Amino acid sequence: MENPQNRTLRIALDAMGGDFAPNNEIQGAVKVFDDPQFPENVEIVLIGKENEIKSALAHVDHKKVRYSIVHADEVITMDDEPTAAIKKKRNSSLYKGFDLLSKNEVDAFVSAGNTGAMLSTATVLLGRIKGVSRPTIGSFFPSQVDSPTIVLDVGANVDVKARYLYEFAVMGNIYMNQMRAIENPRIGLLNVGEEPSKGTELLQQTYQMLAESKMNFIGNVEGKDILNGACDVVVCDGYTGNAILKFAESVFTLIKFKLKEYMNSGLLPKIFLMISKPVLNTLFKGFDYQKYGGVPILGVNGVAIVGHGKSSPLAIQYMIMKAVEQVQKEVNKKIEAELSSNDN
Amino acid sequence: MENPQNRTLRIALDAMGGDFAPNNEIQGAVKVFDDPQFPENVEIVLIGKENEIKSALAHVDHKKVRYSIVHADEVITMDDEPTAAIKKKRNSSLYKGFDLLSKNEVDAFVSAGNTGAMLSTATVLLGRIKGVSRPTIGSFFPSQVDSPTIVLDVGANVDVKARYLYEFAVMGNIYMNQMRAIENPRIGLLNVGEEPSKGTELLQQTYQMLAESKMNFIGNVEGKDILNGACDVVVCDGYTGNAILKFAESVFTLIKFKLKEYMNSGLLPKIFLMISKPVLNTLFKGFDYQKYGGVPILGVNGVAIVGHGKSSPLAIQYMIMKAVEQVQKEVNKKIEAELSSNDN
Repeated sequence: MENPQNRTLRIALDAMGGDFAPNNEIQGAVKVFDDPQFPENVEIVLIGKENEIKSALAHVDHKKVRYSIVHADEVITMDDEPTAAIKKKRNSSLYKGFDLLSKNEVDAFVSAGNTGAMLSTATVLLGRIKGVSRPTIGSFFPSQVDSPTIVLDVGANVDVKARYLYEFAVMGNIYMNQMRAIENPRIGLLNVGEEPSKGTELLQQTYQMLAESKMNFIGNVEGKDILNGACDVVVCDGYTGNAILKFAESVFTLIKFKLKEYMNSGLLPKIFLMISKPVLNTLFKGFDYQKYGGVPILGVNGVAIVGHGKSSPLAIQYMIMKAVEQVQKEVNKKIEAELSSNDN
Repeated sequence: MENPQNRTLRIALDAMGGDFAPNNEIQGAVKVFDDPQFPENVEIVLIGKENEIKSALAHVDHKKVRYSIVHADEVITMDDEPTAAIKKKRNSSLYKGFDLLSKNEVDAFVSAGNTGAMLSTATVLLGRIKGVSRPTIGSFFPSQVDSPTIVLDVGANVDVKARYLYEFAVMGNIYMNQMRAIENPRIGLLNVGEEPSKGTELLQQTYQMLAESKMNFIGNVEGKDILNGACDVVVCDGYTGNAILKFAESVFTLIKFKLKEYMNSGLLPKIFLMISKPVLNTLFKGFDYQKYGGVPILGVNGVAIVGHGKSSPLAIQYMIMKAVEQVQKEVNKKIEAELSSNDN
């Protein structure tokens, strides 16, 4: 295809994806076009139930939004199996998004829908980038420095080989370099200690592969190094990454629970809590996932961005913006150049 | 040995173990004997550099403490290799503690020292309980309910088999039943989703073994279920458990960092933070590891309790109390009865 800077870019948005669809999706799209910096050559393709999309549009001022609607009868829910879109719901917005992407009718697909279904459908319809053994999904974690840390894999691959982990590192490296403007992303291998001899044989093998690569491999890192800003990319198997991600999400659930318990313990605590609001809000803001703009499915032939089911309009806005950026930066081309030239 | 309720119990305390040794250790021992409920048949054996122990004792009112001192010239530091006590430092307090325990000269050994060295030395000097393939170390996590969740393994075993995970469940089950008075501890297998078919072949095998056991196996659980009170025992490999534990510890480091950053951003934030102290303290108290009383090394022939390097006197106090309780409840006998009668 032509240089993405010069032609019209079409970003498909799953209007039925998130828990608050289609309203949050439509409001997110409106926010995108409210931004005067947003490139003029970009259009949004809203995929979903046409009447619901139109009704959501009617509630907002959308005259700046450059959009078209692609009707899709069905919806993939959070309870659907990962293979549901391929096996049963080919009229779903999720399937249609990847179908359009695979036919180059759109340049990217963004959804706050079912992550497992996104991954399966992306892998089947888009196929893998040459040189990639397994597509992966990472997740961003806040850190003590401004830039977040990406951990991958967080659930796409529970069974891994050293080669897969190496590829996750390569993809994370290119992604953080291109999309977060980090010159030499620091790559860490999640392990139980620093020494190269730590961990399973698989981890030791991966350590060697990473140490021999051109990447800025800083060695083995531990669970604490995800949040402390020690590295930009943390590589691990999807079982462990998923456990950490789900654990991390639950930390705030527990904190909120404890605060509620405290609040209900009396009038004085209620007052204390009220006057503590600014501090607590600042604290929580530091862990706000919205600004990360979703997570990319890396390793498939196409730009696919997955968002949290609870994505707010702001989160949707950032997801669309990140999708545009990922197309413009030609991240997938760079992944292919790196991995397809590799010996194995 | 005789019934532990009737004879004198000797709890060995590594006076040189933690980062603030021997002061916190000695102060912890004093606190134990300040408690009028503490059983009269218990004595403390303080192991370490005699002059340092005596000097620490001189600074506190220790007239209620029933103690003896066993001199040990060397100290295992946090930087020492796990095998250091066995290979090089046989005059260390850590080695001497396990040596006394293996000879039944003491009933339990408590240390806030090097966890890896504790585990290796315990395994070599005490040996495994009959029927146990691999000793394990778990860790307690706070939860929405009063009782904490134990996750095991958290680093002792990075390479596991289904049988090991099954045994971790059995040991966690007995421990939580005896030591936390939970009638039918809910056992969860950490996985990437609920269905029995989720995860690696190893996890699927483990699922089957647990499902066929007499335990209260609630099925696969996810990372979020550690904190939300969904289960009492979470079983996983030591690589994943270690990553979650280290990650969890770092959450509060990050929160403290963000609060400091906020405080330094101006006078108003400083004031806000000051008036928020009661709320923040209540919040942090909910995650206080001190009251858990350390973590047991499970599966070895002897009661061995490991504490955090930063253990406060209060944490040491609880560790000693938990050691006494674990001896009295004869937890190891129950583990042996359960696992040695098993078919394989």
